[in-house]
Amino acid sequence: MLGMMQEQQLLISSLLEHALRSHPQSEIVSRTCEGPIHRTTYGEMGRRAARVANALARLGVMHGERVATLAWNGYRHMELYFGVSGMGAVLHTINPRLFQEQIEYIVQHANDQYLFFDISFAPLVAQLAPKLPGVKAFIAMTGRAHMPDADIPRLLCYEELIAGEPESYAWPRLDENSAASLCYTSGTTGNPKGVLYSHRSSVLHSWSACTEDGLGLSSGDSALLVVPMFHVNAWGMPYAGAMSGAKLVLPGPALDGKSVYELMRDEQVTMALGVPTVWLMLFRHVESASLDPRAQLCLRRVVIGGSAAPASMIETFQQQFGATVLHAWGMTEMSPLGTICRLLPKHAALAPAERLKIMTKQGRAVFGVAMKITDDEGKELPRDGKAFGHLLVRGPWIAAGYFKGEGGDILDQDGWFDTGDVATIDEDGYMHITDRAKDVIKSGGEWISSIDLENAAVGHPSVAEAAVIGVAHPKWQERPLLIVVRKADQELERGAMLAYLEQKVAKWWLPDDVVFVDELPHTATGKLQKMKLREQFRNYSFPV
Amino acid sequence: MLGMMQEQQLLISSLLEHALRSHPQSEIVSRTCEGPIHRTTYGEMGRRAARVANALARLGVMHGERVATLAWNGYRHMELYFGVSGMGAVLHTINPRLFQEQIEYIVQHANDQYLFFDISFAPLVAQLAPKLPGVKAFIAMTGRAHMPDADIPRLLCYEELIAGEPESYAWPRLDENSAASLCYTSGTTGNPKGVLYSHRSSVLHSWSACTEDGLGLSSGDSALLVVPMFHVNAWGMPYAGAMSGAKLVLPGPALDGKSVYELMRDEQVTMALGVPTVWLMLFRHVESASLDPRAQLCLRRVVIGGSAAPASMIETFQQQFGATVLHAWGMTEMSPLGTICRLLPKHAALAPAERLKIMTKQGRAVFGVAMKITDDEGKELPRDGKAFGHLLVRGPWIAAGYFKGEGGDILDQDGWFDTGDVATIDEDGYMHITDRAKDVIKSGGEWISSIDLENAAVGHPSVAEAAVIGVAHPKWQERPLLIVVRKADQELERGAMLAYLEQKVAKWWLPDDVVFVDELPHTATGKLQKMKLREQFRNYSFPV
Repeated sequence: MLGMMQEQQLLISSLLEHALRSHPQSEIVSRTCEGPIHRTTYGEMGRRAARVANALARLGVMHGERVATLAWNGYRHMELYFGVSGMGAVLHTINPRLFQEQIEYIVQHANDQYLFFDISFAPLVAQLAPKLPGVKAFIAMTGRAHMPDADIPRLLCYEELIAGEPESYAWPRLDENSAASLCYTSGTTGNPKGVLYSHRSSVLHSWSACTEDGLGLSSGDSALLVVPMFHVNAWGMPYAGAMSGAKLVLPGPALDGKSVYELMRDEQVTMALGVPTVWLMLFRHVESASLDPRAQLCLRRVVIGGSAAPASMIETFQQQFGATVLHAWGMTEMSPLGTICRLLPKHAALAPAERLKIMTKQGRAVFGVAMKITDDEGKELPRDGKAFGHLLVRGPWIAAGYFKGEGGDILDQDGWFDTGDVATIDEDGYMHITDRAKDVIKSGGEWISSIDLENAAVGHPSVAEAAVIGVAHPKWQERPLLIVVRKADQELERGAMLAYLEQKVAKWWLPDDVVFVDELPHTATGKLQKMKLREQFRNYSFPV
Repeated sequence: MLGMMQEQQLLISSLLEHALRSHPQSEIVSRTCEGPIHRTTYGEMGRRAARVANALARLGVMHGERVATLAWNGYRHMELYFGVSGMGAVLHTINPRLFQEQIEYIVQHANDQYLFFDISFAPLVAQLAPKLPGVKAFIAMTGRAHMPDADIPRLLCYEELIAGEPESYAWPRLDENSAASLCYTSGTTGNPKGVLYSHRSSVLHSWSACTEDGLGLSSGDSALLVVPMFHVNAWGMPYAGAMSGAKLVLPGPALDGKSVYELMRDEQVTMALGVPTVWLMLFRHVESASLDPRAQLCLRRVVIGGSAAPASMIETFQQQFGATVLHAWGMTEMSPLGTICRLLPKHAALAPAERLKIMTKQGRAVFGVAMKITDDEGKELPRDGKAFGHLLVRGPWIAAGYFKGEGGDILDQDGWFDTGDVATIDEDGYMHITDRAKDVIKSGGEWISSIDLENAAVGHPSVAEAAVIGVAHPKWQERPLLIVVRKADQELERGAMLAYLEQKVAKWWLPDDVVFVDELPHTATGKLQKMKLREQFRNYSFPV
């Protein structure tokens, strides 16, 4: 027997309609590529999103067709978020930091019909365009006065494109499971794979972001999105903003410490979201300019994701900014919200160092995300904060597969998605990532975390950087090999290194050997390339 | 083209599973009918809910069949919330304050298979049982030691029923649109009508309750549900509790000021929800016992709904308790959450009296509830805070019809449900109810609010109570008639009354006549019966 509730589909356009009815006057403030700060409202954004939809309909864009953006965080990008998805097309946000060949690949793989770009990407688009004959037009997101003079074929001007269009659009009543947006993961191997979000997943994810135990975004916030709109929909914040009516502050291309600080100060930012790197730049600016964030800002919460937030960063935000860090974890395949780390009432009695230890964990799953850890045979492991295993997730905003079936089946028979991470989960549901599954060292049926060993090794005053990889071992299957870069002019030998580690880790975790090198291989974005290291040490064997 | 997200159904059992994984140790504290305070956790509640489901399955309860409760707020009622709906049956919560004939009617209308009851309702059940041959068993929600000795046929003991059952249950993967619970409205005319909530509507509603702009329920809260679980699922809080992990405090049958205050104090209650009546009892207790709530309690928010929160109540909570009132509005047909009144950042600069004026409004629609006001022809009226018209709502947790089709089609062709209220909506989306549609006076095409006139009239020091009804008028269609009960030993005549009103309302709103009576007709719950008044004054005609 079915309930007798209204059949209302959860759509991106329903978020926009809510914003227009409930908080048309809430602000959206952008730093533009053209230079000045631009101020608008959800009301005006909604009317211009309708113009975008009318223009795309005039150009012949059909339901389900992809429309790409290559753009920073700004009001025109917001208009595309709602105009493109609202009219039934699919917004494909492209990460401009990908290699040019990868961008070519994904635009072709996605069959993008149109490509909207910020003028700072004009040189890139000029290079890409000749390789992209399928794109019907390249639309510069600016007015006539700032049109780029780069050599771009089929070039259109955004403001001219939408100028004559009506300010309303009869948003179609789509099936909520229709595709709404597309984002490619920049995997370390193979071609990028597309994650295809639905209207339903985007709306449910927004609700989660607005819950107090999620990110708590509300009409009382002024939220600075340092996290880019070209990456997992800026963690869903443009949608959650429309849901809540929070003031949104969009920093455009200027992510340096000074620009970010000034926006925080001038726009009374209460909440900011970004990856650790940008906060390090912010800290450096605060230090070099001798600023007093506690006195000048009204920052209350900082959401840190993308990679693990170091304890010192959590402390700096607490002490210098008076802001609470919400450590968050997720993936492109998870829309991305998976866990948030915030303390429970019972933690109030703990010593600060104990509380900090909890806050460096990835946190507890928001409702909508189920998590479990398993061993290699798929058997669920206990939630005791000690056992660590493969981290599996399930939920309505988690991918069931990649666009066009790339990568094949990605769910197990019970519908769980393997994150590729290795983690512990404790009795209160706090999850802590201990390693990537491919990096964990399997020694005699037990697992050793390469990350934990690396963290222990870099604690030595003479160590600049360290990596641990598993190397084949006749008896134990694998044993850890520690690879160390010494600090300049520092002496450090194998024996001293192992003696130091002996005080830090269990005896059976001790690396079987230590190798000293001049440098370690990194990706363009600074991540350690363990695959290259494993390649490099393929023929290595432990001393007998 | 569909998105490629996982097909996860939103189910009551998914709320329970989340609670078991993420916050099994969060508390549920109940004042019991048997006397003592009972403490349990979501973990234990979930295991006992599984026992309930196993017991019902053993009794032969099928998907979609109704299982009734006649119970206060308590842990066993929570177990039934999750056990009954989780296993695919429909939880029918019965309001014990209905007339006995109405209860008989709805149990029969719902075809309830089993009826669970708190022992304080044993005398009522003894009277009901002979009239309810379709109910297969009456289950007293207690252990053997406290079984009632009332004459109840087919009587079972709750603890014995579930004692031997397993602590887990393979919760069925239902369609999320399946019926989950049933609640009858106690309309002023005709038989009660059933609102049939779905799993989907209950889960979406919970998300809304957990958003910061909703009720903001979170793992940091200790929430006292004075609002009864037999009425619109205690405003959805049992579900939202499982979603968030908030500690729940359930007051059982003891709703007097002293009992409520002691629970607030002893359980560190941060948030409390209830109707104005219970808060008046609380205030009286605080006053008579000379208590200092600000010092003794940690109450931060009070949600007031059911009827309008008077300004003085909002002020008392602010000043004496240091708590913010969230004025909420909804209906049984709306699950019930429709609007919440909280201030926006821009209101911080207002004078306290101006802020208070906003807080007495019903508030802004949560995402998921669309609202509009229309004239008699269905034309939408402006959102200017002045125009008032029929309040229509639409959304995924709003009824599409009543159980078994009673009352016929209740939505217009665009899917809007007419609330029967008359309201204004302002530019920021704040809705303010000015009258019931059937009570508003239609004078020459314009509307006059009977409630506004009544409120103005009772401002006169000699008036004990006042009612305004519309009476047929040859020229204006209807004109207001003011009916007044004087305070004891007070003199007040027509001329003085009208002269007083002249200073308070627009000239064309002035009643055409004033009639003095000894008393006004009321319902059992104290509401003015305007229908009876209209009956009484059917043959009245205005002085020429």
